[in-house]
Amino acid sequence: MEEKELTALERQGRAAKEAARTLAVASSREKDRALDAICDGLLARQGEVLAANAEDLAAARAAGMSPAMQDRLMLDVKRVAGIVSGVGEIIALPDPIGQVTKMERRPNGLQIGRRRVPLGVVGMIYEARPNVTVDAAALCLKTGNAVILRGGHDAIRSNLALAGIMRDALEQSGLPRDCVCLVEDTSRSSAVELMNLTAYLDVLIPRGSRGLIRSVVEHARVPVIETGSGVCHVYVDEHADLEMAANIITNAKCSRPSVCNAAECLLVHHSVAQEFLPMAWEKLKQWNVEIHGDGVTRSILGEFTVIPATEADWDTEYGDYKLAVRVVGSADEAMDFIARHGTGHSEAIVTENYTTAQRFLDRVDAAAVYVNASTRFTDGGEFGLGAEIGISTQKLHARGPMGLEEMTSSKYIIYGNGQIR
Amino acid sequence: MEEKELTALERQGRAAKEAARTLAVASSREKDRALDAICDGLLARQGEVLAANAEDLAAARAAGMSPAMQDRLMLDVKRVAGIVSGVGEIIALPDPIGQVTKMERRPNGLQIGRRRVPLGVVGMIYEARPNVTVDAAALCLKTGNAVILRGGHDAIRSNLALAGIMRDALEQSGLPRDCVCLVEDTSRSSAVELMNLTAYLDVLIPRGSRGLIRSVVEHARVPVIETGSGVCHVYVDEHADLEMAANIITNAKCSRPSVCNAAECLLVHHSVAQEFLPMAWEKLKQWNVEIHGDGVTRSILGEFTVIPATEADWDTEYGDYKLAVRVVGSADEAMDFIARHGTGHSEAIVTENYTTAQRFLDRVDAAAVYVNASTRFTDGGEFGLGAEIGISTQKLHARGPMGLEEMTSSKYIIYGNGQIR
Repeated sequence: MEEKELTALERQGRAAKEAARTLAVASSREKDRALDAICDGLLARQGEVLAANAEDLAAARAAGMSPAMQDRLMLDVKRVAGIVSGVGEIIALPDPIGQVTKMERRPNGLQIGRRRVPLGVVGMIYEARPNVTVDAAALCLKTGNAVILRGGHDAIRSNLALAGIMRDALEQSGLPRDCVCLVEDTSRSSAVELMNLTAYLDVLIPRGSRGLIRSVVEHARVPVIETGSGVCHVYVDEHADLEMAANIITNAKCSRPSVCNAAECLLVHHSVAQEFLPMAWEKLKQWNVEIHGDGVTRSILGEFTVIPATEADWDTEYGDYKLAVRVVGSADEAMDFIARHGTGHSEAIVTENYTTAQRFLDRVDAAAVYVNASTRFTDGGEFGLGAEIGISTQKLHARGPMGLEEMTSSKYIIYGNGQIR
Repeated sequence: MEEKELTALERQGRAAKEAARTLAVASSREKDRALDAICDGLLARQGEVLAANAEDLAAARAAGMSPAMQDRLMLDVKRVAGIVSGVGEIIALPDPIGQVTKMERRPNGLQIGRRRVPLGVVGMIYEARPNVTVDAAALCLKTGNAVILRGGHDAIRSNLALAGIMRDALEQSGLPRDCVCLVEDTSRSSAVELMNLTAYLDVLIPRGSRGLIRSVVEHARVPVIETGSGVCHVYVDEHADLEMAANIITNAKCSRPSVCNAAECLLVHHSVAQEFLPMAWEKLKQWNVEIHGDGVTRSILGEFTVIPATEADWDTEYGDYKLAVRVVGSADEAMDFIARHGTGHSEAIVTENYTTAQRFLDRVDAAAVYVNASTRFTDGGEFGLGAEIGISTQKLHARGPMGLEEMTSSKYIIYGNGQIR
C-alpha cells in the first residue's frame, strides 16, 4: 500500500480498526473484565469527570444555553453512579458474540454454520449528553465492536475525561486502548468526515435530534442505522373500550412527552367521537395538554379548548404536551392516515373488535404495532432486550428497539474435507 | 399534503409504494398465483420478448458491443425457458412473510412478537442481463416487496417487454401492476435520482460490475445492500494436505473465473512452498493460468512462468485465468495479508492443523470462511437458501448469500389489554 498523509480522523479510524481485530476475538470474560475496570475507573476518578463537566457547564452558561439543555449536560455524583450502574447491567447480559445460530451438513458433506460476529468499528454521533459516551462505548465493547465517539461540542471536556478513563481501563485489562476512540474536533467538518470514513467504519449510528439524524442520512456514505424520530398515533376505534382508550392516550401523550415513543396524534372513529373526546379531555387537561384539532374535534370540545390544526400539525413530533386530534370515518381511513403521516415508529389501536385489531396489526407498517396498549412500551428494557442502543425506524438490519444482537453481524463458517465444486 | 409536480420516477415510486401496501398483505397463494401467471405470460408471449431482444442486439452490434457482452444480452427460446424455470423454483420455496420468529409474554401481560414483513419497495440497479429483470422481480414478489427495476440501456427493449408481461400477469391475478415498475429512462441521471428516492425506496440493491456498485455506494442516500466484489484468497498452510490444496486452488481459480467467489490470490506457507508450488502449477497450467508472483514464487517456478507481481496485483479482482501468488512466513502473516487485501467475501485455509484451522475461522473477517474447501461454494443454492438475490459483502442486514429471508424486515406486534406505562 502506498503511504499517504492520513488525517487525524483517519489515523483514529485505522487505530480503531486494528483494535477491533483484537477485540473481535476477545472472550466474554476479557470484555466483562474491561467493563468492570471501566466501572472502577469511573468511580475512582469521578473527581476528574465532575471537574471537566463543571467547565463544560460554565462555558455553556456563558454561551447562554437553556436550563433544560444545561440539565442534559450536567453530571453529579448521583448521575455518575447511574452511569456506572448502567455499565453493570450491560456486564450482566449474555454475550451474543460467537453464538452459532444455525449449522447444517450439506449433501456434499460441507458443514455450514452461521456465527454471530461483531460489526467491527461503530461510529456514534450524538449531542450534549455525556452519559451516552459511556453507555455507547459499553454496549459496543460488550458486543466486540470498537467505537469512534463523536459527541457534541458542549460536552467535549466531560467526554474527554470519560473516554480517557475508559481507555486507561481497557489498557489495564489487556485490551487495546483504541477500542474506544473519541473525536476531539467537534467542528461540523469532523462530523462530515466521520460520515464518509468508509475505509474504517462499518456502521454509523446517530443519536439525538431529528435534525442531526436527517443530516447524517443526507451526508453519510457509510451504512447508517437511523434511530429515533417518532410521530406515533393512537387510533380509537368505534368498538373501543373508551375508558381504556382515554387511559392509553393520556399515558401515551403525557407520561414522558419528550421521548420518541410518545403519541403525537389521536385518531377517533366518528361514531364514538362525541362520547370519547370529552372523556379523553377530562384526563388530558390535567396535564395542560394543548389540543390541535380538526373541525369536528373543535365542534365537540369547543373552540376555546381546540386550536385549529394546520396541515403541518399532522407531521409534527411535538415532544411536548401538545396533541393533534382528528376524527376519521373508518379504521381504514385511520390506517391510510397513519401510512401518510406516521414515521414508522409505534402505532396503536384501541378496539374490542377482533377482525379490526388483526387488520391493524397486518396493515400498519411500523417498527411496533399495538393493540390496546400504550405506544410508550417501545423500549429495549420493556421488550426484554436488556439494553438499548436506540430505536431503529428503518427496515434494514434492525427495526425497533436495538439490543445487543442488533450490534452484531454474522459470518458463515464452513468445515470441509477437500470439497471442490 | 401540498401537491407539487412529481417527476416520472417519483410517480413510479409513489405507485410502487401504494402497490407495496397491497402486496404486503397478499397471501402466499395470491403471490404464487401471480408468479404462475408470469410463467404462463412469458411462455405465451416469448415472441415479443425475442423480437425486442433482437432489436437490442442489433443496436448493440451496431454500437460495437463485444461478443462476450452480446452473449450476456442475448435471449433465445432456451434462455427464456431457463428464466421461466427459475421463477418456478421461486414458487416452490416457502414464503418467509408472516412468520413470527419469537413471541413472549412480558411480566405486565403484554404479548410481544416479532413478525417477518416485507422491506417495502426495493430498487434494483443492474446492467445488461435481461434475465435479472424477471429473476429480481420474482424474488421481490415472493417476499411481498414491490420493485423498481432500473436495468441497463442496452437491454431496455427486452426489459420493457419482460416487465410488460409481468405487469399484465399481476393484473390478471388481481394484484396491482405497479408491484413491478421498470424505469424507462436509462440515462445516468435516472440512476442517480433512483439512488436518492428516499421518500419511496426502502432499499437499493445494485447488481453488476464493481464500478456500478461503487457508484451506488458513493451516491445513494437510500439504504444500500452492497453485493458482489470478491478478492478471495486460498491459504495453503504448512500442515496442509498438499494434494487437496492443489485441487482446491485449481477449482477456486479455474472452475468459473468470472464470478465473485473465484479465488484471485494464493498464499503459501514458506515451509511447503518448494514442494507445493510445482504441484499446483501442474494443474493450473492446464488452464493456462497466468501467475503473478512475488520473488520467492518466481525463484521456485521460474521467471518464464511467473510475472513479477506489482502492488496492484494484491488488490485486483482479475475475473480471469490469472492468479496472484505470494509466499508467507506464517499463518498469522497470511491472515494479516487477508485483512489488508481481502474484500470480505470468501477466504479459505487448507490445513490439517486443528488449532490453525480454528484460529483462521475466528480471525478472518469475511462473509464466508472455509477450512479445506473451495471458495466457489459461496452461493445461495450451495448454502441451501434456494434462491439468491446476490452476495452481500457488507456487514449490515445481510452478509454472504442473500436468500428470501434477507429480503425481509420485521415488525413487533404487541397484544395488550389496556397496559399503560
